[in-house]
Amino acid sequence: MATKWVYAFREGNGSMRDLLGGKGAGAAEMTRAGLPVPPGFTITTEACNAYYASGERFPDGMWDQAIAALRDVEAQTGKKLGDEGNPLLVSVRSGARTSMPGMMDTVLNLGLNPNTLRGLIARTGNPRFGYDAYRRFIQMFGKIVLDIDSDKFEHILDARKQKVGAKLDTDLSADDLQVVAEEFKELVRTETGKDFPTDPYEQLRLAIQAVFRSWNSARAITYRDFHKIPHNLGTAVNVQTMVFGNMGADSGTGVAFTRNPNTGENVLYGEYLPNAQGEDVVAGIRTPHQIAEMAREWPAVYQEFKRYADLLERHYRDMQDLEFTVENGKLYMLQTRSGKRSAVSAVKIAVDMVAEGLISKEEAVQRVEPGHIEQLLHRQIDPAAKVHVIAKGLNASPGAASGKVVFDADRAVKWSESGEKVILVRPETSPDDVHGMIVAQGILTARGGATSHAAVVARSIGKPCVAGTETVKIDLELRQFASDGVVIKEGDVISINGSTGEVIEGAVPMIEPELTGELQALLGYADSVRRLQVWANADYPRDAEIARRNGAQGIGLCRTEHMFFETERLPIMQEMILARDDATRQAALDRLLVFQKNDFVGIFRAMNGLPVVIRLLDPPLHEFLPDYEELLVQVTEAHARGEHGPEVEKKEALLKEVGAMREANPMLGLRGCRLGLMFPQVNAMQVRAILQAAIEVGREGVSVHPEIMIPLVGHVNELKTVREQLEKVADDVMKEAGTRVSYKFGTMIEVPRAALTADEIAKYAEFFSFGTNDLTQTTFGISRDDAEGKFLLQYVSQKILPSNPFQVLDQTGVGKLMRLAVEAGRATRSDIEVGICGEHGGEPSSVEFCHRLGLNYVSCSPFRVPVARLAAAQAVLSEPVKVGV
Amino acid sequence: MATKWVYAFREGNGSMRDLLGGKGAGAAEMTRAGLPVPPGFTITTEACNAYYASGERFPDGMWDQAIAALRDVEAQTGKKLGDEGNPLLVSVRSGARTSMPGMMDTVLNLGLNPNTLRGLIARTGNPRFGYDAYRRFIQMFGKIVLDIDSDKFEHILDARKQKVGAKLDTDLSADDLQVVAEEFKELVRTETGKDFPTDPYEQLRLAIQAVFRSWNSARAITYRDFHKIPHNLGTAVNVQTMVFGNMGADSGTGVAFTRNPNTGENVLYGEYLPNAQGEDVVAGIRTPHQIAEMAREWPAVYQEFKRYADLLERHYRDMQDLEFTVENGKLYMLQTRSGKRSAVSAVKIAVDMVAEGLISKEEAVQRVEPGHIEQLLHRQIDPAAKVHVIAKGLNASPGAASGKVVFDADRAVKWSESGEKVILVRPETSPDDVHGMIVAQGILTARGGATSHAAVVARSIGKPCVAGTETVKIDLELRQFASDGVVIKEGDVISINGSTGEVIEGAVPMIEPELTGELQALLGYADSVRRLQVWANADYPRDAEIARRNGAQGIGLCRTEHMFFETERLPIMQEMILARDDATRQAALDRLLVFQKNDFVGIFRAMNGLPVVIRLLDPPLHEFLPDYEELLVQVTEAHARGEHGPEVEKKEALLKEVGAMREANPMLGLRGCRLGLMFPQVNAMQVRAILQAAIEVGREGVSVHPEIMIPLVGHVNELKTVREQLEKVADDVMKEAGTRVSYKFGTMIEVPRAALTADEIAKYAEFFSFGTNDLTQTTFGISRDDAEGKFLLQYVSQKILPSNPFQVLDQTGVGKLMRLAVEAGRATRSDIEVGICGEHGGEPSSVEFCHRLGLNYVSCSPFRVPVARLAAAQAVLSEPVKVGV
Repeated sequence: MATKWVYAFREGNGSMRDLLGGKGAGAAEMTRAGLPVPPGFTITTEACNAYYASGERFPDGMWDQAIAALRDVEAQTGKKLGDEGNPLLVSVRSGARTSMPGMMDTVLNLGLNPNTLRGLIARTGNPRFGYDAYRRFIQMFGKIVLDIDSDKFEHILDARKQKVGAKLDTDLSADDLQVVAEEFKELVRTETGKDFPTDPYEQLRLAIQAVFRSWNSARAITYRDFHKIPHNLGTAVNVQTMVFGNMGADSGTGVAFTRNPNTGENVLYGEYLPNAQGEDVVAGIRTPHQIAEMAREWPAVYQEFKRYADLLERHYRDMQDLEFTVENGKLYMLQTRSGKRSAVSAVKIAVDMVAEGLISKEEAVQRVEPGHIEQLLHRQIDPAAKVHVIAKGLNASPGAASGKVVFDADRAVKWSESGEKVILVRPETSPDDVHGMIVAQGILTARGGATSHAAVVARSIGKPCVAGTETVKIDLELRQFASDGVVIKEGDVISINGSTGEVIEGAVPMIEPELTGELQALLGYADSVRRLQVWANADYPRDAEIARRNGAQGIGLCRTEHMFFETERLPIMQEMILARDDATRQAALDRLLVFQKNDFVGIFRAMNGLPVVIRLLDPPLHEFLPDYEELLVQVTEAHARGEHGPEVEKKEALLKEVGAMREANPMLGLRGCRLGLMFPQVNAMQVRAILQAAIEVGREGVSVHPEIMIPLVGHVNELKTVREQLEKVADDVMKEAGTRVSYKFGTMIEVPRAALTADEIAKYAEFFSFGTNDLTQTTFGISRDDAEGKFLLQYVSQKILPSNPFQVLDQTGVGKLMRLAVEAGRATRSDIEVGICGEHGGEPSSVEFCHRLGLNYVSCSPFRVPVARLAAAQAVLSEPVKVGV
Repeated sequence: MATKWVYAFREGNGSMRDLLGGKGAGAAEMTRAGLPVPPGFTITTEACNAYYASGERFPDGMWDQAIAALRDVEAQTGKKLGDEGNPLLVSVRSGARTSMPGMMDTVLNLGLNPNTLRGLIARTGNPRFGYDAYRRFIQMFGKIVLDIDSDKFEHILDARKQKVGAKLDTDLSADDLQVVAEEFKELVRTETGKDFPTDPYEQLRLAIQAVFRSWNSARAITYRDFHKIPHNLGTAVNVQTMVFGNMGADSGTGVAFTRNPNTGENVLYGEYLPNAQGEDVVAGIRTPHQIAEMAREWPAVYQEFKRYADLLERHYRDMQDLEFTVENGKLYMLQTRSGKRSAVSAVKIAVDMVAEGLISKEEAVQRVEPGHIEQLLHRQIDPAAKVHVIAKGLNASPGAASGKVVFDADRAVKWSESGEKVILVRPETSPDDVHGMIVAQGILTARGGATSHAAVVARSIGKPCVAGTETVKIDLELRQFASDGVVIKEGDVISINGSTGEVIEGAVPMIEPELTGELQALLGYADSVRRLQVWANADYPRDAEIARRNGAQGIGLCRTEHMFFETERLPIMQEMILARDDATRQAALDRLLVFQKNDFVGIFRAMNGLPVVIRLLDPPLHEFLPDYEELLVQVTEAHARGEHGPEVEKKEALLKEVGAMREANPMLGLRGCRLGLMFPQVNAMQVRAILQAAIEVGREGVSVHPEIMIPLVGHVNELKTVREQLEKVADDVMKEAGTRVSYKFGTMIEVPRAALTADEIAKYAEFFSFGTNDLTQTTFGISRDDAEGKFLLQYVSQKILPSNPFQVLDQTGVGKLMRLAVEAGRATRSDIEVGICGEHGGEPSSVEFCHRLGLNYVSCSPFRVPVARLAAAQAVLSEPVKVGV
């Protein structure tokens, strides 16, 4: 039997996507469901492949089958291709399995020639409509099928408009358009050396060939290469009867959603324009009518449309985005597809549809994007608001805020105590500014990247932050900043958008975040699906509480160093670092111990029953000391001015101390466990604080599960040595208290060597936690602080990197190390607990990767926990179905 | 049949090392060869294992076999254990398969008690000798077998010396020693609660047990753990007749080498002392006689000894280190083992023995340590010289030098032009100092590690350098430095030892390096054996010439940035970097192009016929600019002093520029291919220079093989993008010249991600070169500059790391990445050329690893090429023998 190359719409169905392409299968499915789809047919993707296989010729029988299908369309419509009396006009569209840029889009009005044009004008009584349709056809066909530069057509059109003083295309009369059409045909003759084809069958043949050829256009090939789409799928061709919404008052065209795509409310939402074509709606000259008005205007059509909308939504089990046309009172359905929707709407629709029994909870989980959850959790600037952006920096911590500008932390505290909302604006922040950051609505800095102090602290306390805004020129003496020609004085109001990096003059309307009942329901579905646990990074009891409220199942990273940066503690920390003898150092440590213990008590209480991973001191000690260059300037100034005395001497001494601790590459310097090995007293104090706190809250009846994490291990002996030292300390504390408490020792995997030798390291680690921030830095050999401003963002925009590896985990490189480490770690210790505590722990594609790696948990910012919960559930649902189970 | 636990010396042989231990097998082999070895026997290692297996009891039959063997010894010697008339005295020694610290060494004179002592005195007529032997026996036995603190014995001995006014042990009389022996026995009684054992059989039994027990001493176990020696090998016990060289004028004792261990000359070399015991030789009270004198003094003994020496050397096919004793005119051979030797001697002996037909060329290659070659290639301080070390820094570049101290490069040039030898002493060096470094004999810096500018440049130009000598306090204004209380003024002479890091006051005698005929012969043998090629890192034509002279087969790394640091070029480079528009930048680049081309012309000529890998600009651009902090101080001073004017403004502008280019972690910043992607003009200039140079020398008839290396690639798209840009440039140059030249593109593998994704990267690379300096930094997450001073050396001394991974390649971690990269790279491109150009390329164990990985070449400093040639050959010879081939 001969191959079937052509399917009438009513012969196909929605499952035939591979053969008929997306558009063809959709049209077939609607036709099959009894909806009024303008008749048409689809030439299969196999025909496209056969076309190429036979040296760019239609396969045997295809053309005959197409003509037969056309006859069938003619029979259904009563029109005939090329018939002057009642001409059939068709559209020709490409349609591959997935929509693909670079392929031919659409030729409309195919079938027009001087004869059929006459017939069209006669039947519609509208010469302008007729000539406009004709010149559009020549233009589209000329460009797409005959490959003529479209500028040349536009040039003719513009010349005509200029000649007759028309501003818009619509200002041109029927006569003007007739002239244009003639000039278009003359252009085609000049460019191709042939007359524009008048035979509608010739037009159809050429259009089908053009669709086939567009499959192998350079743009399409590049697109497939990039997206790894096979080149042998081919494209289908759809030929469909034209219908016109501009045939008079009983005609029209519109788009509608089966539910409100902004709010999710379950009502028809959309608009239509009587006596208009799709292009007129886009042009925006007339105001469209709300879809609800149709019930009054065209009650029968409305009822019919509503019925189809319900049917399609139930059929596709998702909110649909519909296109329709009414021609002389008859409704035609042109397209249906899943509708795009807002974050609020996505969640509401998904949860509503579960309640309506339309979809399962698992499907609901798949219907919401993690980015939607992210949006819902932060205050957003109302997208409808008109704003004056005066600068753009790095989107360092999401959310938005308005407030009065203050230039120092103390004033931020003072003003906010008197009820003002403030935005703290600093050249860059340091530990001295943290008290101001905590009370501010948001933070704006002129310098620093996504790992700058401002960014890290802002994310950890959930404040919006725009960092590294280099166009913002701050003058601390005048207490003002200038940007983009605008001067903002202290006390003036600005807004910042930490999700986009924008700085805006004045206050702007905001949309408040809400953990709605629907969102909670959806996250509940996600929890019932996911296997990967979601923990949170939290340094303070208040963070731990937020984390728990957002559903965190543990603390995956408690950074102890942030505790030392607090105002009252930093001087003690500095005393400890600068101590010249052990007694002084120990005295300072003893004072720090009290603070540390109380921090841990608070966190343990908040996380009653859940694990808490505490990382021992990690950053280089000089981070706790004054800045070297500032000291250098002060000492140099004092010398140049001939100043003397104890104050200068103290500065000189400090300069020397800080100078001796400076590092060429602090990221790769004396930090992490290296510190612990050189100065074991600090670690010992911390472990003492952890165990004492655990024992104390344990006696209160709190169930406490401390896990002590040793950072920056690269060689097993580092871990072994530190662990052995600290086990002794822990034993001492427990002996002193006369009780025991169960705890774990583990390590960060954050340098490549740790991943490569994870089998050895696992001997001394009950858990691994991937520190993917540092692991990404060392695996790429890229300092995030330096790179984001200097080349990394350009790398992404130039497509050298697919995405910023500090935001989206690099699965190929860093991920390979993680896989090696998981496999080697589990080979040594099968029950080793493995998690991730880098920022990637809250990024959906990275969460999915962690799920596939079989990690026990991801740990992320408390504010991203809901995002990770959803992403972890989606990871389960996107697993390939196991066959034969 | 019962197990044989005991072997008489004459029953064993040299191949029974596993069973009899090294000492036992050696004594057996000498006995078997007919040499006069004092009779004795060996208790096997299996007996030791059986001892432990049966709960620390001698295995059945062992003691009886030992007694039987003893009887045999008695029969041979005519002496009897415990016999007052003619007492047999024996030594008892442990002897495992390999010599091992922590195990029992030796108990001498076993068999003495009051009775046998009387007999010994009677037979020797020497009461002092008798009592001395007796007290020594009690002391050794007490310490080693009875586990009594040896200080307690020394205390008694010292008290006696003080009492009688004796300075040395030898000042004590027979009576004194008799008293001491009695007090020793009293001590044993107090410490052990028992009398010192008088029964020689009891003594023997206890001594054998002590040897067995020493196998499991804490020190021995730790040693085996560290060296990965199995714990189940066990130790043998050797029991041997004592002979005495202090029996009169016809007795004596000595040591000798079969060849001169300092020069390698083929003559007996050593010394002996008549009427003396081994200890007397060590004590150095009497001057020993040269071995040649024996020919006159004891002609018969000399002839006999010479015969044995020849026999043993031929037997063992290596220079032997012999111990012998003459007792009453009878020669006894006590020990033979391969002799330690100097570098010169090792090479000469190996090559001579090949000429003598004694060993094969392959064996000769195995007889010389790569470290020996290293020594021979650098000037060394005469080890015999007495020196005053005033400071110790980092051994940053090997070799030694003496010269007058100068504190700046210009003066170094001036003085050396007038014929002075100078040592350049600087706080640290910068590109401004290079012209002074080139003319200096050596470089001493107060700051900076093994990758500091001083160290890197010194190694690359083959000058000795001591860096980071923190105790050296330089006062540039007074033009002097102080260290260890000594003040050295400019013009004073110092010496530095770049191999040890020592700084020495004054001039010292030196040993000049020599590429002797023997060394060349040996390296020739190595070349005929090795498969791994040896290339060199060379930045200048003069380096390339040295490299070639030392046998390099290519240039594996030509660092183009060093070229830009030269005095006349640096200002142009700075102009290029600071250019505000493309035209200015291009003008500077055009001027640099001329220099670059000439550099390459010189190198290509020098390497006629061999490949030259040229790395495109790698370091961050700010390295070429003035130091930020120096500028900051200058500008701050100017401001504080109220200075104004164009000079200050220029500085301010420069400060701003340099400030904007500063990086938090320059090691991980904007450098390597990242620079090339952000500023493609520099790379384009370099490729233009390379191709123009290649075409020019090609027309001279030089065979030129340029390989263009793109540094710091982490993602395939970096390489792809840069390569595509540069291929266009290369094509342009070749079109302009109307000729073609063959060249390669490749990349460094120096960040972990490159290794992990080598399969992708190999698509665009014809060669890989492992940059193991940076790869080690990123794999460990350790900045070498920061770490070596702050924790890395402590890590090594505390055994956290087995060695400094920047000197000895970390095979477990970094090596694993290299293996992954080689495998993945070759899977994509089977003929990809893979080499290493990090400093490890000249380190023997790393060279061996590279051989095992199957690299094509190692590339190292021109001065280490001979070392690598030898190491590469040894790598072949240490391959496991393939069975069944």
